[in-house]
Amino acid sequence: MNAAVNPAESAAVSDDMVARIEALGRAARAASRHMAEAEPGAKNAALQAIAEGIAERRAELAEANERDLEAGRARGLDAAMLDRLALTDARIDTMIEGCRQVAGLPDPVGTISDMAYQPSGIQVGQMRVPLGVIGIIYESRPNVTIDAAALCLKSGNAAILRGGSEAAHSNRALAGIIQSGLAAAGLPREAVQIVDTTDRAAVGALLRMPEYVDVIVPRGGKGLIERISQESQIPVIKHLDGVCHVYVDAAADPDKAQAVAVNAKTHRYGTCNTMETLLVHADVAETFLPAVAAELDGLGVSLRGCARTRAVLADSGPEVAEASEEDWAAEYLGPILAIRVVDDLDAAIQHINTWGSHHTDSIVTENWGHARRFLRAVDSSSVMVNASTRFADGFEYGLGAEIGISTDKLHARGPVGLHGLTTLKYIVFGDGHVRG
Amino acid sequence: MNAAVNPAESAAVSDDMVARIEALGRAARAASRHMAEAEPGAKNAALQAIAEGIAERRAELAEANERDLEAGRARGLDAAMLDRLALTDARIDTMIEGCRQVAGLPDPVGTISDMAYQPSGIQVGQMRVPLGVIGIIYESRPNVTIDAAALCLKSGNAAILRGGSEAAHSNRALAGIIQSGLAAAGLPREAVQIVDTTDRAAVGALLRMPEYVDVIVPRGGKGLIERISQESQIPVIKHLDGVCHVYVDAAADPDKAQAVAVNAKTHRYGTCNTMETLLVHADVAETFLPAVAAELDGLGVSLRGCARTRAVLADSGPEVAEASEEDWAAEYLGPILAIRVVDDLDAAIQHINTWGSHHTDSIVTENWGHARRFLRAVDSSSVMVNASTRFADGFEYGLGAEIGISTDKLHARGPVGLHGLTTLKYIVFGDGHVRG
Repeated sequence: MNAAVNPAESAAVSDDMVARIEALGRAARAASRHMAEAEPGAKNAALQAIAEGIAERRAELAEANERDLEAGRARGLDAAMLDRLALTDARIDTMIEGCRQVAGLPDPVGTISDMAYQPSGIQVGQMRVPLGVIGIIYESRPNVTIDAAALCLKSGNAAILRGGSEAAHSNRALAGIIQSGLAAAGLPREAVQIVDTTDRAAVGALLRMPEYVDVIVPRGGKGLIERISQESQIPVIKHLDGVCHVYVDAAADPDKAQAVAVNAKTHRYGTCNTMETLLVHADVAETFLPAVAAELDGLGVSLRGCARTRAVLADSGPEVAEASEEDWAAEYLGPILAIRVVDDLDAAIQHINTWGSHHTDSIVTENWGHARRFLRAVDSSSVMVNASTRFADGFEYGLGAEIGISTDKLHARGPVGLHGLTTLKYIVFGDGHVRG
Repeated sequence: MNAAVNPAESAAVSDDMVARIEALGRAARAASRHMAEAEPGAKNAALQAIAEGIAERRAELAEANERDLEAGRARGLDAAMLDRLALTDARIDTMIEGCRQVAGLPDPVGTISDMAYQPSGIQVGQMRVPLGVIGIIYESRPNVTIDAAALCLKSGNAAILRGGSEAAHSNRALAGIIQSGLAAAGLPREAVQIVDTTDRAAVGALLRMPEYVDVIVPRGGKGLIERISQESQIPVIKHLDGVCHVYVDAAADPDKAQAVAVNAKTHRYGTCNTMETLLVHADVAETFLPAVAAELDGLGVSLRGCARTRAVLADSGPEVAEASEEDWAAEYLGPILAIRVVDDLDAAIQHINTWGSHHTDSIVTENWGHARRFLRAVDSSSVMVNASTRFADGFEYGLGAEIGISTDKLHARGPVGLHGLTTLKYIVFGDGHVRG
């Protein structure tokens, strides 16, 4: 999981910046040793103190945020970006509630599993332990500062947070509240640090400290994530695309199929677990497609179809543009849907494994064998039967919270909750046992 | 887990070589889809057929191996290297037995865990699935070809194997047997392929195909592993150093402590789980050190100690050289031991987390609290109480077999068996459920 140094990029980071970020790294590593041994009570007390700190210092927070908003308006940020940047009262309430929820989750650290006696007489099992130091790099939403800090803290890690420069004042205020909360609970303030400079070289330096940082979690647009993955010498837990499918099998219940397809597409357009391509078995295309196409059209969704889809919908249905191979690979993140008619289950699986992004895919079927086969053969982080892809989410999965959804295969796959921020070490109990 | 391309290295790989290795990659990816769905019976039949094939074609194998040995002698390989290269009758028997053992292990693929109903009514759980395509890069021992192929096959992965050029004939013969065994069981021959060229550029090409290879497992010396980790654009499951410790606590039973320390150092010198530094609590240094030092000296182990160790052993004990900081970081892989006297448990933990390689560390103590603390605070892939570090091994841990020992934190940590070659995907069962 290491990477070659790109000399061109390295050159951009000054020695001074490297020294500054390394100081953060060293402090984080030292704090992580304390955090790994922190009692659940102390960590929960810190989370409660942070929640109280946010509530008490609401005015101060609003003021810091207003400075960011003013600077953003002066720099001509668009409305969507200003909206993401804003710490409204409702968002502040959500941050407070988030800290309290995380405090209420079971503590994953130190859990021992599978202890079993071996033929030699030793007992062997695994203990769940923190990863160590987690670097989080994110864009404009300042609430990520609290969400990420809360999850890292609860999972016994130290965190180095690097938010967007446009949220610098808000993030600084939030970091102050977090560090006060840590101190109030007797935990090291350096367990959560922010990279408090708007110099982009700081990120480059952070990505080149495998001795101080164990994993990088980028949160933001695809461009940010790709850039960080390329540059990082530290393992990255990442999510790139969400090209999700619903496959309507020949044995599908048409009502369930329509409900699932419409929900998967229209419940929210901009999320990574939104359906982007609908696959329909040829045997039911003529009955299923007109009804679902009409409903989607009524909801304002533009359709792009293969030749067979267009033929079926030519007379009765709404307008369907011609889909190309680019559509099979597209993450629209908007009110557009690609539709393809497939000959059988095999063709559906083949399409998903070839064109999908290994995120979330669902079959709608009443046939046991087809469901069983789909679950096994589809190579995605979430595979579903008769459920909307929109369920792929840490809260819906019962993880309590998530730091993101991973489409990587190693370590964490799918929604990443507290467990994804921990690892397992082996533990061995003996009584003077030696190997013969 | 991605990496920047190092342009200097890339330039060394010709387009022709890239095309050739990509063809292997495409075939492996296609085969991996079949393997992911293969029934346990078919995979076990292939393993049994490979075992039979090795037994039946023993003479052919010996002949191929003799050609490698001749070429090696002509090239002036040293005796140790020629020994590693040799497929003796005993080693051939071990390969046959290894295939049969792996066939007998429980099949990890498709195991479903933690299915639980969520408030929305959906059921969410996890299914264990293969990683996909595994690239194994190893040095001169041709038996790795069989061991690695067997583990990849059983875990439902496709494998691309790149052995040492000095074992080319042996590896080609073994690959033929493996592919015949796969075909006999109705599985794709391309599920196990070898990179059949001695051109080192082939490795460079293999490490740059994240679209076809999901993980790289290097097996061999530290130089090989470092080079591969640096160059790879694909996640690497790796193990670098084994700087293991035994800490003899003030509350240790001296007989157990001596047995564990002597076994951890002298059971085998060249293995990664061999103790390299012995830490002794100051309160017991004067009673414990002379006895253990005398026994180790009698077994031919050279000692290097801190000032306090040398003071204790100055009169009665064997000669003890002065240890420097380099000794605390050294993996001797030979009959040398560093010894340090520490003031307390904290100092021992601090020493291990600072100087160790996060591989395997053991405390010898009768004190419950000290054992509990050590287990939690030592940041290593295996942490032991009253047991020899030599137990850190896939077979001793009950994994049945191992492909290596990982000192990485993400994904697989410690001995990597079949589970380490798989990952978990989420599965969701509904009955037409949509997100509200």
